[in-house]
Amino acid sequence: MTDPDATDTTRDSSGAADERTASGAADAGTVVELAKRRGFFFPANEAYGGTSGFYTYGPEGAALKRNLEAAWRDRFVTREGHMEIDSPTVTPEAVFEASGHLDTFDDMIVECPECGATHRADHLVEDNTDIEEAESLGTERVAEIIAEHDIACPSCGTVLAGESVEPFNLMFETSIGPGSSSRGYLRPETAQGMFVEFPRLAEYARNQLPFGVAQIGRGYRNEISPRRSLIRVREFTMAELEHFVDPESDDPPIERVEDISVPLYSAAAQEGEDDGDADDGNGGVEWTTIGEALADGTITSEWVAYYLGIARKWYDRMGIDMDRFRYRQHLPGELSHYASDCWDAEAEIDGNWIEITGFADRGAYDLSKHDAHSDEDYSVFEAYDEPRTTERPTVDPDMSVLGPEFGGLAGDVADELASLAARDPSAFEGSEVTVEVDGETHSVPTEATGFAVREETETGEHVTPHVIEPAFGIGRVLYTVLDHAYREDEVEGESRSYLALPDELAPTFVGVFPLMDKDGLGERARAIAADLREAGLAVTYDDSGNIGRRYRRQDEVGTPYCVTIDYESLEEETVTVRERDSTGQQRVAIEELPSRLAALRAGDSFES
Amino acid sequence: MTDPDATDTTRDSSGAADERTASGAADAGTVVELAKRRGFFFPANEAYGGTSGFYTYGPEGAALKRNLEAAWRDRFVTREGHMEIDSPTVTPEAVFEASGHLDTFDDMIVECPECGATHRADHLVEDNTDIEEAESLGTERVAEIIAEHDIACPSCGTVLAGESVEPFNLMFETSIGPGSSSRGYLRPETAQGMFVEFPRLAEYARNQLPFGVAQIGRGYRNEISPRRSLIRVREFTMAELEHFVDPESDDPPIERVEDISVPLYSAAAQEGEDDGDADDGNGGVEWTTIGEALADGTITSEWVAYYLGIARKWYDRMGIDMDRFRYRQHLPGELSHYASDCWDAEAEIDGNWIEITGFADRGAYDLSKHDAHSDEDYSVFEAYDEPRTTERPTVDPDMSVLGPEFGGLAGDVADELASLAARDPSAFEGSEVTVEVDGETHSVPTEATGFAVREETETGEHVTPHVIEPAFGIGRVLYTVLDHAYREDEVEGESRSYLALPDELAPTFVGVFPLMDKDGLGERARAIAADLREAGLAVTYDDSGNIGRRYRRQDEVGTPYCVTIDYESLEEETVTVRERDSTGQQRVAIEELPSRLAALRAGDSFES
Repeated sequence: MTDPDATDTTRDSSGAADERTASGAADAGTVVELAKRRGFFFPANEAYGGTSGFYTYGPEGAALKRNLEAAWRDRFVTREGHMEIDSPTVTPEAVFEASGHLDTFDDMIVECPECGATHRADHLVEDNTDIEEAESLGTERVAEIIAEHDIACPSCGTVLAGESVEPFNLMFETSIGPGSSSRGYLRPETAQGMFVEFPRLAEYARNQLPFGVAQIGRGYRNEISPRRSLIRVREFTMAELEHFVDPESDDPPIERVEDISVPLYSAAAQEGEDDGDADDGNGGVEWTTIGEALADGTITSEWVAYYLGIARKWYDRMGIDMDRFRYRQHLPGELSHYASDCWDAEAEIDGNWIEITGFADRGAYDLSKHDAHSDEDYSVFEAYDEPRTTERPTVDPDMSVLGPEFGGLAGDVADELASLAARDPSAFEGSEVTVEVDGETHSVPTEATGFAVREETETGEHVTPHVIEPAFGIGRVLYTVLDHAYREDEVEGESRSYLALPDELAPTFVGVFPLMDKDGLGERARAIAADLREAGLAVTYDDSGNIGRRYRRQDEVGTPYCVTIDYESLEEETVTVRERDSTGQQRVAIEELPSRLAALRAGDSFES
Repeated sequence: MTDPDATDTTRDSSGAADERTASGAADAGTVVELAKRRGFFFPANEAYGGTSGFYTYGPEGAALKRNLEAAWRDRFVTREGHMEIDSPTVTPEAVFEASGHLDTFDDMIVECPECGATHRADHLVEDNTDIEEAESLGTERVAEIIAEHDIACPSCGTVLAGESVEPFNLMFETSIGPGSSSRGYLRPETAQGMFVEFPRLAEYARNQLPFGVAQIGRGYRNEISPRRSLIRVREFTMAELEHFVDPESDDPPIERVEDISVPLYSAAAQEGEDDGDADDGNGGVEWTTIGEALADGTITSEWVAYYLGIARKWYDRMGIDMDRFRYRQHLPGELSHYASDCWDAEAEIDGNWIEITGFADRGAYDLSKHDAHSDEDYSVFEAYDEPRTTERPTVDPDMSVLGPEFGGLAGDVADELASLAARDPSAFEGSEVTVEVDGETHSVPTEATGFAVREETETGEHVTPHVIEPAFGIGRVLYTVLDHAYREDEVEGESRSYLALPDELAPTFVGVFPLMDKDGLGERARAIAADLREAGLAVTYDDSGNIGRRYRRQDEVGTPYCVTIDYESLEEETVTVRERDSTGQQRVAIEELPSRLAALRAGDSFES
């Protein structure tokens, strides 16, 4: 893997594209087949024909997913000093009324009158015309375009002209309790659990901004056409961070990230492209530092920039190929109305760019919505360093004087007096005050105005925090990690495939193999495996098949090291340690094995 | 905590009951209040009035839950060499048709005709009569009893006589995809994900029995009356293990557990009780070893006994009070028809016994069901040590002879020949064979029967594994851990409450406090906190309020150690380490702090 920080910060796309091929890109079928065969993931419930969009993680995949979640937690929760919570997935309707999901979390669908198949109407338009982002055109216009272009049902070929295009809410609906009076939905994201509970979470943070709350958990979207393996599924795992900040006074520690290089695909670059197609390579992407991108205004939010910086390093650490990675800025038309700057982390898989994380400055939108829809207060009281005293001129007109004097105009005169007091208190210095009502001037004895200057002391103010949200799709990141880790080479004349997973993600760190399970080799190997487990390493013991096959099995699940116990082991107290990527081998004393492997796990390099 | 292994294996209930009080049992309200105030857990969505049965784990609770899950994984997956998977929660209907949940996963409800409130009908009967296990009586009989006893609606007092009692399926239902053609349910347990995928999981296990598959994840039950905090909720986390074994040939390593003492509340003891109430103390519980309980037939399944043994040690390690813990055997009427022996682990909370885990030998029930309902094969082919050859006599009658001879009876004659060949091959030794059809005998020339003896070689047989299932309710175990860890004492004349959590479960292992954040104390404390984090410890930094308050805060979230940095620290390079339970203090050199705390974490004792 190339470390972009070590090279020019500007690199052109052609170089990146060349390197991509060299880094061993597999077609998606190969990785999906390996994932199923080796127990990473596979479509769930296939014994019953399956239901598309649902996947089960097998033993290797579940371990990889746990390691990935732990690495995310380490970087985005623990090291940042944030809190982590765990809220329910079934959520009452009122929450999504407030958040807007009930009204707007829709895809547009069209149903074939002939075969009954349901399709994403905007996708049909995009697939059959030059139009992009068809969703933004609205259902009626999309229906017109389907008619104008004679677009047909992809399932049976029936022309869909005249069929209505309808919104379809993507939340899974259910009923809570007996009877159907209480409607609930499976959360489409983990975020609302953090927004709704903000008042209590702020208490845990002792009402001090900024603070961050994270959650790793399931999300659900009732996709119309699930596809592309783990990429578009109906049930998935997200890792979301909601960083609550005072937009006036809180700044991120930007100095920690300003020298980090990031591959930016700005809105300007996307709009300036000749062919208008964002999906055909890494054209338009510029490597630049976070500091430069902030200085030249490409990234407008310092908070978003901060997370783009630390996330770039993290993706790299997870083994994502930085030549097949970019940050794509949302186009102005794509931005949610409340979001000021949004970037997606995208990874290239099989020639397509896949969104794997969204970074957004969501402003005060979410908390304001819950503040308005519930009885709770979604603000934080921020005390001033010292109480602030302000003088406020007020009036309290004596209507027993104004009434007889001005009749029907008395109310208007009183209002004008109040307005004048705020505007120009000095007007009340004389014995009479003059105000203008409907173009006519009127005089009022100052003593009848009740004019006074009050001192008011304020100890602080209520602030509705803004939300900075990095939202990671764990399944998508995992799929990218597998795809980018996949390698093929030749070992001793035979082709080999392996996963070059980072040590911290590999489901197994060390495979332990007795040459065969006899003459005490098995016992010795089992004892070594137990010692290595005791040392905190993830160990797989395997005594079946020849050593070569056992190596291949571990190569394909990304195990960085294998230890073989042979007859020499019994005589010399040494074992062979073999490294995955180089297939290099070393003889290591058994008593040094745990510390040697722990050192490799901690980052030592293996030299054969 | 008393270690039952160190005492008599038989102990009477009165001693246990006395000790319970001494160990500091809190009423549930105290623990629930602490849980909310300190961020362990609280009812979700209270800003919208809440929906009962759903809880959010706050920062402390989410950390405690993760630690508990990791401890479970360590003991029941890693150390046992099992696999762990992660399957979807939304599940297609066909799976629950096969499992039986669609037909039988019901509670019985009665609706009040006046106020519309819905109640568990069997609970109304149990609360208003001496009847126990009312559910087993069926809906019609329960309706009769409600009428006979003039049972009234607990909400409004209306007499419910004459109202129908209906089954209510406890699964949350939803629709998958657009349209409602594809019904799905939120899984009521994680188990089906392991059963349905058995054929593929067996491949990962290289088709070798026994093997175990575990899963930690969400389960859902649309409870009619959620109650008692985390005990009866609608969304929960389970940790389930399905151990697939060959009932003929696989035995557990029972020698590892036979000396472990367990508090057994056998079916016989329950039935022999005078007052017939299982909920009033620890009467009838006998401490005995696993070996003895198997020898005297109290536990009938060796596999169940094995897990009861290792689980007993694990609960103890989790800090559950062994004097408020028991294994209760299912009564004969309680057993599922397929289960041969079932035991529940129960913990006492607030005077009630709560089921926290179920241990069952489920036989071949689950896999047979999926075998019958799907097209997949849910068996494992077990090879014989050597292929077995058997001789099989067969016939292949020449119908060109039999047809003209027997006319319409020819088919029946042929069937009889086949049956005779299997029954008595010697009948084919002569030149003619005699068979009987409908009471008449017929002769057939032997050469026209096509009689032959074929040698068939079988290399093994198909076995449908039996399932041993320990199923843990993580939320219930967590709640028990909190309740049993709660303590009150007096420190320097002030009352104190704290959680005596085991080190491996505590959300924070060490709190780091500067005396105040000035004169370099804050910087030094932050550097120490960073070093301790680097050493892999869970650290909380706190510089707000006086030291006493900071100690109390950490006491209440169960932090075992606190480190205070004062002026002496800057001069002498030492800090104060304070232990939670004893409140004892030691001066420790800063450079030795990480290794000292790591040693405490690994089990060293603290002596002040």
